[in-house]
Amino acid sequence: MQNRITELFQTKHPIVQAGMIWASGWRLASAASNAGALGLIGAGSMYPEVLEEHIIKCKKATDKPFGVNVPMLYPDIDKIMKIIIDQGVKVVFTSAGNPKTWTSTLKENGITVVHVVSSVKFAMKAQDAGVDAVVAEGFEAGGHNGRDETTTFTLIPMVREQIDIPLIAAGGIATGSGMLAAMVLGADGVQVGSRFVASEEASSHIKFKEMVVDAREGDTMLTLKELAPVRLLKNKFFSDIQELYKKGPSTDELKSLLGRARAKRGMFEGDLEEGELEIGQISGLIHDIKPAAEIIKDMVNEFEEAKSRVKTL
Amino acid sequence: MQNRITELFQTKHPIVQAGMIWASGWRLASAASNAGALGLIGAGSMYPEVLEEHIIKCKKATDKPFGVNVPMLYPDIDKIMKIIIDQGVKVVFTSAGNPKTWTSTLKENGITVVHVVSSVKFAMKAQDAGVDAVVAEGFEAGGHNGRDETTTFTLIPMVREQIDIPLIAAGGIATGSGMLAAMVLGADGVQVGSRFVASEEASSHIKFKEMVVDAREGDTMLTLKELAPVRLLKNKFFSDIQELYKKGPSTDELKSLLGRARAKRGMFEGDLEEGELEIGQISGLIHDIKPAAEIIKDMVNEFEEAKSRVKTL
Repeated sequence: MQNRITELFQTKHPIVQAGMIWASGWRLASAASNAGALGLIGAGSMYPEVLEEHIIKCKKATDKPFGVNVPMLYPDIDKIMKIIIDQGVKVVFTSAGNPKTWTSTLKENGITVVHVVSSVKFAMKAQDAGVDAVVAEGFEAGGHNGRDETTTFTLIPMVREQIDIPLIAAGGIATGSGMLAAMVLGADGVQVGSRFVASEEASSHIKFKEMVVDAREGDTMLTLKELAPVRLLKNKFFSDIQELYKKGPSTDELKSLLGRARAKRGMFEGDLEEGELEIGQISGLIHDIKPAAEIIKDMVNEFEEAKSRVKTL
Repeated sequence: MQNRITELFQTKHPIVQAGMIWASGWRLASAASNAGALGLIGAGSMYPEVLEEHIIKCKKATDKPFGVNVPMLYPDIDKIMKIIIDQGVKVVFTSAGNPKTWTSTLKENGITVVHVVSSVKFAMKAQDAGVDAVVAEGFEAGGHNGRDETTTFTLIPMVREQIDIPLIAAGGIATGSGMLAAMVLGADGVQVGSRFVASEEASSHIKFKEMVVDAREGDTMLTLKELAPVRLLKNKFFSDIQELYKKGPSTDELKSLLGRARAKRGMFEGDLEEGELEIGQISGLIHDIKPAAEIIKDMVNEFEEAKSRVKTL
């Protein structure tokens, strides 16, 4: 299958493996790229020198295109971008910030730029800023999330109506049927997160991967909206947040409960009680831990099966 | 197109026009049924004698099957069900209550029973209760909504995985592409609400219909979760709720702000400031008020176009 997304990224499939904190290191990104998707390293949980190491290892592990996801609110953003440019990374996904800030610099350096949004308004701003494609991410997505709470099913056609550039759907997509549904709604490709957390190559702690596999419908919830909305698995930390909410907490009290390094503690170190466990609603449909290549192969096969079923409707 | 849903309801299309309060009277239901969908009268905003009148008028206005949507928490539920049985209504959609309570009585009277759920757990309970089909409604839907906040995109495949009976997707569906996407995700049919609010035959106030047409992405929000979660258009009343939330209100204070008859005031009487305006996220994709028959015809045509596009993927 060739389309605007495979052409843009020079990949076999219009599938992006999301650059997730504490999950998407060089192992996962290179495995996804080697299997025909676009692998992304998640810079959000990496110090600049750690990111540099992951990029270097990823280049050794694959000769296919891969990219880096960069939350632009990152304190060392200048260093991060310099490393990306110096290392000759071909694709950058930016999020959490103004797409105008970095797009032209990156593009002048021959980098394909994609911006992640959660609303129509920001999709239009990203297009105006000159990005090559937009990821529109719905409310069901894991981790940080938009304030409009617009779902994938409604966000994709509303964004499609307003922008012309390639559109990648994210949030709730873990299967080939989901991929086809997103494309029916107007997407050119898909970004897949939660499904790759439950991959062998994800750097997530095995206990967290197993909890993702065990998760069912209703086991995640968007919370901490006063700080930055984030979708979490319901665990002790989540219950503690709920308890605090009953008291009508100030923003500072919420920040204080969150503390520092909760996400690392949960997703990377495997503290399922006290850690922050970011995952999407579609975790309820994920039942095994597989190699990334198998995830991609299965998605592509399911996509073709789903296409065949459409013919019978 | 014939499938399990068209067979169950004896309709031309696997499309259900949702039985919405202050919108779905006999005019809309009969128009939808005459156009090949299953029209539903919404009993939720009707006194028993008003419902009876609507059923009688609907029978005169169409010789096609139609149904009634009944929130089972309705105070006069016994009277309502007696009227439905006595009037020979063929299909009942139950919601907001235990499907065990009424399913066998209705089925003994030859009535097809469909139960509306917003989670996998309740879909399984509805199947166990012996209903003929389930409507699984996602977080993006207008009006009252589930506590799990599971979106259509993730709810449909997760419900499909656990139940065998026919499955109708609801929440976020207003176009033929949306209909096809829902079916790709595992639904046998779709229930369409917001799109029919903006129909000529809906009994909603014209000012409310126009506000739905003008709505954009981000203009609705789920609120009043401590009472019963409900998705509303953002208006003065919604802002008043938000202001009250800043003070950490008790449930009684929320109830007191809500008061009585807010929904009627907004959606039926057209008070766009003080009224409660229930609509789904997909309102951002609805741009005109059309006859119900045209809505259905356009959806079916778009569905076929979307199927053709799938072939080119």
